[in-house]
Amino acid sequence: MSSRKSETEITFDSTGAIFMGAKREIKNSEIGIFGVTFDGTTSFRPGTRFGPSEIRNVSYGIESFCPQLNIDLDEISFTDFGNLEIPFGKIQPVVEMVKEATDYIYSLNMKPLLLGGEHSITSGSINAAIKYFPNLIIVQLDAHADLRDEWLGSKYNHACVMRRCLEILPSKKLFQVGIRSGTKKEILEIKQENRLVKQEFGKPAIELDEALKPFKGKPIYLTVDLDWFDPSIMSGTGTPEPGGFLWQDFASIIDVLAEHQVIGADIVELAPQLDPSGVSSILAAKTARSLLILLSKVK
Amino acid sequence: MSSRKSETEITFDSTGAIFMGAKREIKNSEIGIFGVTFDGTTSFRPGTRFGPSEIRNVSYGIESFCPQLNIDLDEISFTDFGNLEIPFGKIQPVVEMVKEATDYIYSLNMKPLLLGGEHSITSGSINAAIKYFPNLIIVQLDAHADLRDEWLGSKYNHACVMRRCLEILPSKKLFQVGIRSGTKKEILEIKQENRLVKQEFGKPAIELDEALKPFKGKPIYLTVDLDWFDPSIMSGTGTPEPGGFLWQDFASIIDVLAEHQVIGADIVELAPQLDPSGVSSILAAKTARSLLILLSKVK
Amino acid sequence: MSSRKSETEITFDSTGAIFMGAKREIKNSEIGIFGVTFDGTTSFRPGTRFGPSEIRNVSYGIESFCPQLNIDLDEISFTDFGNLEIPFGKIQPVVEMVKEATDYIYSLNMKPLLLGGEHSITSGSINAAIKYFPNLIIVQLDAHADLRDEWLGSKYNHACVMRRCLEILPSKKLFQVGIRSGTKKEILEIKQENRLVKQEFGKPAIELDEALKPFKGKPIYLTVDLDWFDPSIMSGTGTPEPGGFLWQDFASIIDVLAEHQVIGADIVELAPQLDPSGVSSILAAKTARSLLILLSKVK
Amino acid sequence: MSSRKSETEITFDSTGAIFMGAKREIKNSEIGIFGVTFDGTTSFRPGTRFGPSEIRNVSYGIESFCPQLNIDLDEISFTDFGNLEIPFGKIQPVVEMVKEATDYIYSLNMKPLLLGGEHSITSGSINAAIKYFPNLIIVQLDAHADLRDEWLGSKYNHACVMRRCLEILPSKKLFQVGIRSGTKKEILEIKQENRLVKQEFGKPAIELDEALKPFKGKPIYLTVDLDWFDPSIMSGTGTPEPGGFLWQDFASIIDVLAEHQVIGADIVELAPQLDPSGVSSILAAKTARSLLILLSKVK
Amino acid sequence: MSSRKSETEITFDSTGAIFMGAKREIKNSEIGIFGVTFDGTTSFRPGTRFGPSEIRNVSYGIESFCPQLNIDLDEISFTDFGNLEIPFGKIQPVVEMVKEATDYIYSLNMKPLLLGGEHSITSGSINAAIKYFPNLIIVQLDAHADLRDEWLGSKYNHACVMRRCLEILPSKKLFQVGIRSGTKKEILEIKQENRLVKQEFGKPAIELDEALKPFKGKPIYLTVDLDWFDPSIMSGTGTPEPGGFLWQDFASIIDVLAEHQVIGADIVELAPQLDPSGVSSILAAKTARSLLILLSKVK
Amino acid sequence: MSSRKSETEITFDSTGAIFMGAKREIKNSEIGIFGVTFDGTTSFRPGTRFGPSEIRNVSYGIESFCPQLNIDLDEISFTDFGNLEIPFGKIQPVVEMVKEATDYIYSLNMKPLLLGGEHSITSGSINAAIKYFPNLIIVQLDAHADLRDEWLGSKYNHACVMRRCLEILPSKKLFQVGIRSGTKKEILEIKQENRLVKQEFGKPAIELDEALKPFKGKPIYLTVDLDWFDPSIMSGTGTPEPGGFLWQDFASIIDVLAEHQVIGADIVELAPQLDPSGVSSILAAKTARSLLILLSKVK
Repeated sequence: MSSRKSETEITFDSTGAIFMGAKREIKNSEIGIFGVTFDGTTSFRPGTRFGPSEIRNVSYGIESFCPQLNIDLDEISFTDFGNLEIPFGKIQPVVEMVKEATDYIYSLNMKPLLLGGEHSITSGSINAAIKYFPNLIIVQLDAHADLRDEWLGSKYNHACVMRRCLEILPSKKLFQVGIRSGTKKEILEIKQENRLVKQEFGKPAIELDEALKPFKGKPIYLTVDLDWFDPSIMSGTGTPEPGGFLWQDFASIIDVLAEHQVIGADIVELAPQLDPSGVSSILAAKTARSLLILLSKVK
Repeated sequence: MSSRKSETEITFDSTGAIFMGAKREIKNSEIGIFGVTFDGTTSFRPGTRFGPSEIRNVSYGIESFCPQLNIDLDEISFTDFGNLEIPFGKIQPVVEMVKEATDYIYSLNMKPLLLGGEHSITSGSINAAIKYFPNLIIVQLDAHADLRDEWLGSKYNHACVMRRCLEILPSKKLFQVGIRSGTKKEILEIKQENRLVKQEFGKPAIELDEALKPFKGKPIYLTVDLDWFDPSIMSGTGTPEPGGFLWQDFASIIDVLAEHQVIGADIVELAPQLDPSGVSSILAAKTARSLLILLSKVK
Repeated sequence: MSSRKSETEITFDSTGAIFMGAKREIKNSEIGIFGVTFDGTTSFRPGTRFGPSEIRNVSYGIESFCPQLNIDLDEISFTDFGNLEIPFGKIQPVVEMVKEATDYIYSLNMKPLLLGGEHSITSGSINAAIKYFPNLIIVQLDAHADLRDEWLGSKYNHACVMRRCLEILPSKKLFQVGIRSGTKKEILEIKQENRLVKQEFGKPAIELDEALKPFKGKPIYLTVDLDWFDPSIMSGTGTPEPGGFLWQDFASIIDVLAEHQVIGADIVELAPQLDPSGVSSILAAKTARSLLILLSKVK
Repeated sequence: MSSRKSETEITFDSTGAIFMGAKREIKNSEIGIFGVTFDGTTSFRPGTRFGPSEIRNVSYGIESFCPQLNIDLDEISFTDFGNLEIPFGKIQPVVEMVKEATDYIYSLNMKPLLLGGEHSITSGSINAAIKYFPNLIIVQLDAHADLRDEWLGSKYNHACVMRRCLEILPSKKLFQVGIRSGTKKEILEIKQENRLVKQEFGKPAIELDEALKPFKGKPIYLTVDLDWFDPSIMSGTGTPEPGGFLWQDFASIIDVLAEHQVIGADIVELAPQLDPSGVSSILAAKTARSLLILLSKVK
Repeated sequence: MSSRKSETEITFDSTGAIFMGAKREIKNSEIGIFGVTFDGTTSFRPGTRFGPSEIRNVSYGIESFCPQLNIDLDEISFTDFGNLEIPFGKIQPVVEMVKEATDYIYSLNMKPLLLGGEHSITSGSINAAIKYFPNLIIVQLDAHADLRDEWLGSKYNHACVMRRCLEILPSKKLFQVGIRSGTKKEILEIKQENRLVKQEFGKPAIELDEALKPFKGKPIYLTVDLDWFDPSIMSGTGTPEPGGFLWQDFASIIDVLAEHQVIGADIVELAPQLDPSGVSSILAAKTARSLLILLSKVK
Repeated sequence: MSSRKSETEITFDSTGAIFMGAKREIKNSEIGIFGVTFDGTTSFRPGTRFGPSEIRNVSYGIESFCPQLNIDLDEISFTDFGNLEIPFGKIQPVVEMVKEATDYIYSLNMKPLLLGGEHSITSGSINAAIKYFPNLIIVQLDAHADLRDEWLGSKYNHACVMRRCLEILPSKKLFQVGIRSGTKKEILEIKQENRLVKQEFGKPAIELDEALKPFKGKPIYLTVDLDWFDPSIMSGTGTPEPGGFLWQDFASIIDVLAEHQVIGADIVELAPQLDPSGVSSILAAKTARSLLILLSKVK
């Protein structure tokens, strides 16, 4: 049901579906997709474990051609490794395994695209990415600050993930786009640290463009917490927050990032069963299509 | 299962959940929440009876801190009385009981926040409020005019509620924000009477700001029929009407009202079971969070 | 269970519900509604067969008065014929029957409003319309180009419908409004042929107004693929495509078309069971209300 | 939208669907179906108002031939009048209208089959039936005793319906089949009065056969509260009660009643939206098919 | 996305998930699974196209060990080929492709297990099977007779499938277990032809055991229309029919068939989206587990 | 939001609803209910965290009187403490907290009724119970053996819970009723150890009665994994297993246990969101009603 992929204990489950246009084989791929079916620290509404499979399932319902970027997925080469095999009920080992799996992708000279699962997995992939790109910058699309130091008894809770990332990020450069929920302390910090790019409303792409200008050519890791989108189009997530952004805003951000070097990315917090219409999953798949093309542009 | 709260027959059912941050005890509270699980005149799709409990349940899924108003719920003091105990299948007695319950809240020197239930309950709370604030003004956020004199055989149908309110309102001052559905007669009347603030589209907060200017310092009762919001973010309501407003519009209205004296409010017409994603209920809870802070600002 | 309506084999099933305000009898009607419960070529998520009945069911949940056009449905006269009786598992015969049924409506001196069903039915109604209006222009609201020549083994697949329409349209005049998904080849063609009116985002009504100016007085057939709307308000469709349009955009387009001669129309691709909130069906019914008034304006 | 059917105020809404095989016209019919979309006294989970339409909609999903009774619906003649038009939020007037409508059916020399709606409507139809069949016997299939004298402030609550029926029934003969829920007082009474036919479990048809033996040839009114069935096959009802009966048990009861004179019947308490699989509605439609044939056997 | 598997046009889509314990490679397998995502002739409620994938998805939720047959899936060897690639909107070509795919499985010296899709596919697999087993017997578990000669304009409708099978079956031996719905003509025929094994209720395994005794050692093809099960445990099917069978009854039938030579099988008519609890899909997966073991017993 | 209840760190969240008829105060109670919203080791479908609240919510939909045991809940005295406050993403600490909370209940001279949450919590309550009843016997109603030593990387996974219980149970007396799923090794063990009471089908109460005879007067802890019930009436559980038991079987087991001393109990594995009809939750609430009466019989 699974196959060992490296000297470490990392294995991928390849019994499931793969993303539209992906290969199951590794050779000559530019990008490596893998899913992380982890939702162990979610306190409100679980179910992001079903995210990776559903993103793949519905990917066949959209076109492989992206009119915005004018590229078809069949013009690029990418592998879908399946889902990382993880233990249940333990956080830290999972984050460690995510790190190793991401490292494995980079070691194959591929760029990683992670499909979550909950946001807590991001500190794992960041930890691998900084080994290859020490001066990494993080761009975070999210509704929530995720800067708590500890939450519900754990430092690895998804509400703490950006705190963890900041701790290990040499550049300390984190751009938090569209945060609209947090504690008084969190909101204060991101304002004081000039990390915030648009709090609720308005067009965040313009501000992000401005903010990233000094970092042209620097490697960027993009983490997309899908609850950044407005609940009207992304109801399938554990903690939807009214007042979010539309696809149009995301497309503008893609235009900005297309001018930069995105060397790794994740799409997290899809809980597909919460949106029986399937629209949330389709939005996530279209997001993945954009990120695949974005990642393929960096040579 | 319930406890008598006054000399009248009003009792509250306290077997259910309470709103995030609320107390179950009365003393020293600024605001009193109670639910009215009434949906007896709904002709199309019932279920607003489940609204009050669901608003409370999902309230734990959002933060207690409101970045817009920069206040945390733990900075204010409010009691959740539970749901008013009501008979089934009778309208007028329910409206009467709502009046008495609201009166009871005011008599305790608290401001009421009602969680509906259908809109017909508002004429009850208005009737209590004008006893304490005779020169009351009503601001109504709604998709529908609700000005019919009688509907489906009853004067207390939710389609008639603003007609009932107008009859008992000494000031005759009613501002109807965002009405986009009605009979030819209703739409004509609200235009002729200059009651209308933005019919569909655009930014209603600017017009409301203008309209309320002459009434600075006057007591305002705010009734929020949740179908004022666009069905994209509020699908969990009995008669959704395309072409509504987003959270951003509501936030702007809160900004306007924060400059005025809101001395009572209700949130009505949430039918949570119609939106299996739960987004509608979460929007209603976030609306309640804003109103609690608004009500707390009036001393 | 059905009644023969013409010399051909066309019969309508009249055992179901009718649209709000419609008559079951033919005489003196300006408009004829009929449903086509066909979803045989849908490859991703079927269920548009349930569209016609659900549009009728929920029509009773909105007002018969349209504030935008200031007309009430009871001021116009229209017949609901029920659903066309069709065989299962065969495409071409169904398209042929749609043609005959549309022809029958025109022969009664009525204008047709078709309720789909999938988009492939449009080439049938166009084929009938051009017999009566040879210089017909088509306005297509759609997320997808639908210009493939063949798809999944059939020339009558819904992904090919506008190709089929173009083949039989003498004027070759097709305005494709808001297309945001297609193959590289399709998107290139509609740009080269100047058929495109707004690709994603922005306000398409202004461009459409401009594009239609040279055709004042010309007969227009309007085909509304409901996936033109944004998935936030139209999740109940087989292939939702993020980045679509809101009701406000549609209302603006109605304002434009009210200055023209719309002599036939269809509303297709509602798959009501995919949106358990019912909002998609209500949006479709409100769309139908607008189109009925639009069709009634042409004498 | 409706048509006056008698000198009284009774009107039927004929804009909706009709039951499989029914006529919309009255003449030469043996049986008259009508729906009562009333759920005003339901305290737990409303929605039986949607029952009548959904029973009709899904009736087209079963065969018209009944293998058990070896009769096809096309061998009998019955009219579907549509739904009785009723006011919202008032109980007693509705019960009175049900009485008049049932009387109207009998006056046309037809036997009534009512589709509920909640159980409270039965006292209306019984009141009409005893005018034509004074020595009427009632057979009640139900999970609940429904013998409260008053409930939640009303004597017409559905929890009181059999108390109301007993008060007006000259014969005082009521057979309560399969009751498995009630107050201590109710359960005691039905045991003392020898009204009970099987409390939970076992095969109730044998006991019913025995109990009805002394009443051969007497007119029977059959009221089927669908929650009599086990929740495994009838989850679509407001107050499902575990430990109920299967279709096989119902078929045996039909065999028993086929030896008697069933001169009127109702099927109540279907709340179709609670069972998204549709199985409950299909079971209700199959129940209706059996009852139509049963009613047609009495000449 | 697919790979050519034989000289004919048959290709399988291997981008999806595989059944628990299956291999993706062919060599040394005893059994070959493939899915047929066809629901083109379904008139009432479509969606069996989603059956094959969902059976595979939920198969990971049950144990691989079968206590009844005391065998674990890891003791047998079987390949999951994925889904047959088929055109949309055409019946006869699909049936032909099913025939070729089944033939291909047999040509590899494997026994086929088909996952439907609708029942109409069975005449394809039977047509292949009789080439290898001319004296084949068919055992049909089904709620419906499926013996119409033509239905809704097609001879290949799923309501006609057993008629088609009979036409091509040299032995003319068809055992129809548990049929409880049909036309008067169908029910009469299966009784006259002694094909019927238990019509509704009772324990069909005993009768089947008796009926099959004269055919010990003869090759049996087993077609399982999942609507044979009672809707209480199989609500996820297009035309559920109350009065069906439980898992216990199926287990008894497995005990009977374990004494015979089952050389091919299919599981059809799962429409998973109709049962949001997933129980229907899990039942189908457990059925598949039993059939895999049954097929593995024949050497 | 919570209140400290003992010297240890155990706190209960009392912001939620309470079970029908329960008190919020402790004094003079015979039984103490508390919920454990833990589902951290669930590998297939999570959501049992929502079980405790939903059991309470729907408890108001059944009568407080139990006809089988002829007792009304208002004749007994019990407290609902709310839900135990637990950390997310950690198993062993939660099990420890369950132990302490159960101990606290016993220390108040009350008997515990736990509402799960997943089955892994049972080893916590058993660990507390054996302190007070060292010669405890366990009766387990379950579909699964739950005897794995470790699963998915954890000894506290819910698939291991009865192994954990056996390790700490001095009497080693465990009666496993109705197990119908497990590994080959598990099924073998429970047969060899004579622990099994009815494997699938038949009437388990008779065998249980026999098995418990030698233990008259001994303290029994009853753990009810709701997947013991057939999926037809209990679809709302993570790993439903076809071939289970009906309410009637449970009622018979209650009759057996009423002759014994049940001194503690839990109801686990309800995942209410998986059964949108709510029937599973109602069955769980009725189960709780029976257990409350059972526990109250032991003085």
